[in-house]
Amino acid sequence: MAQTLLRVSGLCPCLLLLTPALTFGQEHAPQGHDDPVTPVVLALAVILTAAKLAGHIASRIGQPPVLGELIAGVVLGSFDLAGIGWFHAIETDAIVEVLARLGVIILLFEVGLESTVRDMLKVGLPSLLVAVLGIAAPFALGWAVGALLLPDRSIYVHAFLGAMLTATSVGITARVLQDLGRSTSAEARVILGAAVIDDVLGLVILAVVGGVIASADRGGSLSATEVALILGKAGLFLFGALAAGVYLSPRIFGLASRLNGKGVLLSTALVVCFTLAYLSGLIGLAPIVGAYAAGLILEDVHFRDFANRGEHQLEQLVHPISTFLVPIFFVIMGMRVDLAAFARAEVLGLAATLTLAAIVGKQACSLGALGRRLDGLSIGIGMIPRGEVGLIFANIGLGLTIAGQPIVDEDIFSAVVIMVIVTTMVTPPALKWSLARSR
Amino acid sequence: MAQTLLRVSGLCPCLLLLTPALTFGQEHAPQGHDDPVTPVVLALAVILTAAKLAGHIASRIGQPPVLGELIAGVVLGSFDLAGIGWFHAIETDAIVEVLARLGVIILLFEVGLESTVRDMLKVGLPSLLVAVLGIAAPFALGWAVGALLLPDRSIYVHAFLGAMLTATSVGITARVLQDLGRSTSAEARVILGAAVIDDVLGLVILAVVGGVIASADRGGSLSATEVALILGKAGLFLFGALAAGVYLSPRIFGLASRLNGKGVLLSTALVVCFTLAYLSGLIGLAPIVGAYAAGLILEDVHFRDFANRGEHQLEQLVHPISTFLVPIFFVIMGMRVDLAAFARAEVLGLAATLTLAAIVGKQACSLGALGRRLDGLSIGIGMIPRGEVGLIFANIGLGLTIAGQPIVDEDIFSAVVIMVIVTTMVTPPALKWSLARSR
Repeated sequence: MAQTLLRVSGLCPCLLLLTPALTFGQEHAPQGHDDPVTPVVLALAVILTAAKLAGHIASRIGQPPVLGELIAGVVLGSFDLAGIGWFHAIETDAIVEVLARLGVIILLFEVGLESTVRDMLKVGLPSLLVAVLGIAAPFALGWAVGALLLPDRSIYVHAFLGAMLTATSVGITARVLQDLGRSTSAEARVILGAAVIDDVLGLVILAVVGGVIASADRGGSLSATEVALILGKAGLFLFGALAAGVYLSPRIFGLASRLNGKGVLLSTALVVCFTLAYLSGLIGLAPIVGAYAAGLILEDVHFRDFANRGEHQLEQLVHPISTFLVPIFFVIMGMRVDLAAFARAEVLGLAATLTLAAIVGKQACSLGALGRRLDGLSIGIGMIPRGEVGLIFANIGLGLTIAGQPIVDEDIFSAVVIMVIVTTMVTPPALKWSLARSR
Repeated sequence: MAQTLLRVSGLCPCLLLLTPALTFGQEHAPQGHDDPVTPVVLALAVILTAAKLAGHIASRIGQPPVLGELIAGVVLGSFDLAGIGWFHAIETDAIVEVLARLGVIILLFEVGLESTVRDMLKVGLPSLLVAVLGIAAPFALGWAVGALLLPDRSIYVHAFLGAMLTATSVGITARVLQDLGRSTSAEARVILGAAVIDDVLGLVILAVVGGVIASADRGGSLSATEVALILGKAGLFLFGALAAGVYLSPRIFGLASRLNGKGVLLSTALVVCFTLAYLSGLIGLAPIVGAYAAGLILEDVHFRDFANRGEHQLEQLVHPISTFLVPIFFVIMGMRVDLAAFARAEVLGLAATLTLAAIVGKQACSLGALGRRLDGLSIGIGMIPRGEVGLIFANIGLGLTIAGQPIVDEDIFSAVVIMVIVTTMVTPPALKWSLARSR
């Protein structure tokens, strides 16, 4: 009977156990309907308000809104230090956590939608070279920083530090290039092309390093076979998903366009995104890998039938969902920064060295421009910002453990956030200077 | 230290306890990243696919998509009977539950956006009369059905049965009127006007009945003072929120329009919606009451500044979010129907009597047309469908208890779902017939 009641009331037994986390507005406990959504909507209202206000301030001082959202989170998180425990409860709530993770999945899907598989195949040799150099050098430097400054941590932590420095967040650069009217220059094409390859290579590195760590945590060794196995799995998934997707996508959307009802285009696209995210999670990769692959696969040309019946463009339909969910991720990331850690010299030292490695590492990109009439310095500077991608990697590192210890601990996380903030902030003025010089 | 690790890893201790519910894809446990979002995205992919396919079939046979989504849920839920426990795990998952509840909040917000406070003030006497009669008669009949068929259940259960029969879901009628080219007729105006008042009155009844039950469950009595107190609170909240909102909304959006950044209009609107939903939950009302009030308050005229800077209309921005979240609610509602209950004579008897009370009760609406040149029968028929509103009430009843027993048990829930399905299905053919007759 109790079983039946639970079934009907739609509450799993676990939900009852969850109560302390869910009712973080407990001081103001509602009298009647103990709706589990009540504390969640309050958290969402606070997060969205903070995100938009901070995004405004950031954009007023010439910085990208994502930086504002991150700092808004740091500020909200500091109320926790001031003894206001409610913000700590938001930060650790399981529901808000899943909403934030859905936000990253939608974000990577949206980023993927901006490119197509065809774009990736035609970016050309300079972009490929820039991308590979810009991945390899920061990876090696980050690893070295780890080995140097954290000698007592395992080799897996060092490798993960390297991996976190690889992926460029080119949105900031794209925005600066656009503001300066240089977004169609040869340098811009090389940078944006490299960024497309960069995303994929970064995800592969994440998959391999993450997979090796998970395997080592289960007692596996760091053998070359193990690495090759995981690399093969990641490659097989990515290229398998892309190949199958390019073949299947027009067929799926062709069938879907025959369905009556509103919202079929958006729903079908979300189903493709969620299915690939699930499959990549299933084989041990991060769900964002699948979401990005789903975005790459889907092309406007597959949706012609929907446009003909008056539905909006897919990007326009996905955007409101990302407006709602994506800021949750960045604000929560900011809240996880431990301000007290900033007062510790070793954290600041790690942050400064990582930031230096991140900036210097990407200057290897300028080698990709050698022998061509390209401004190598501007390309190297354009690849500096790490932004959201670095944070996504750091967040995944929080969840990975080796021998019971998290790969990314509080100190490393705080150092990575400083690195993300600094690399993001230095890029706009540096790029303006460098482009003005070359002109 | 353990505390610190938990803080950093972003997992509340409860999340660990939640594991059995979250990892409902456990048979295929991911090897590496145990991302809590992985099982959720699979559930979302399955729910959205089922919703769109069933919505298509429903619309092919002239039924509203919501009916398809509900029946899709019943079908998925029946796999549980067939021994496939995975669907049962979706149905009881705490995260999917909150996503479904966010869906209803967005749905009521969207419904509220379609009307304004001014619309409500000017619908006129016939609409007001139709609405009041169409609330009072089904409420009395539903209560009587409860007293007659469930004599051993408390008076609160009987009152809640009455409350569940009150609110019309006029979307179905609006669609039929549109299909027949009669959406600007006098009858259509009266029906649509009544539906606006109906929504508000239905929410007030829900608030009062729900509040009285919650108070009785805490040992309060069903005194007239108690009822008046809760009625006063609900009235004060609704009219207070509307009055304050009408005053504040242009000012809030005026300030928000000065913020830089993308998505400010949508984010501000969501913050208003979530804040009012939280406040209504805080004073013991259902969060949907606040969400609906938020929708009523917001008017296009407040967003002129946003339209001038090229943002889309608010309805267009909210719609993708509802496309994503709303079907989750209806599919989960369908899954909660216990097919085995349909085999029990008392459930079918209750369902048949409730359906009869729902249909006959709304015919009182035709009295509102007396003495005017209006087709009373068509108005009465147009008010029949209960659709989503009845389900939302039933779902709230699942969460209310009296002396440890839920107000709405498995049998009553199944009977209400049958009532919703039948009243929704009979309306389109009956209305077509009745309008053809009057013409």
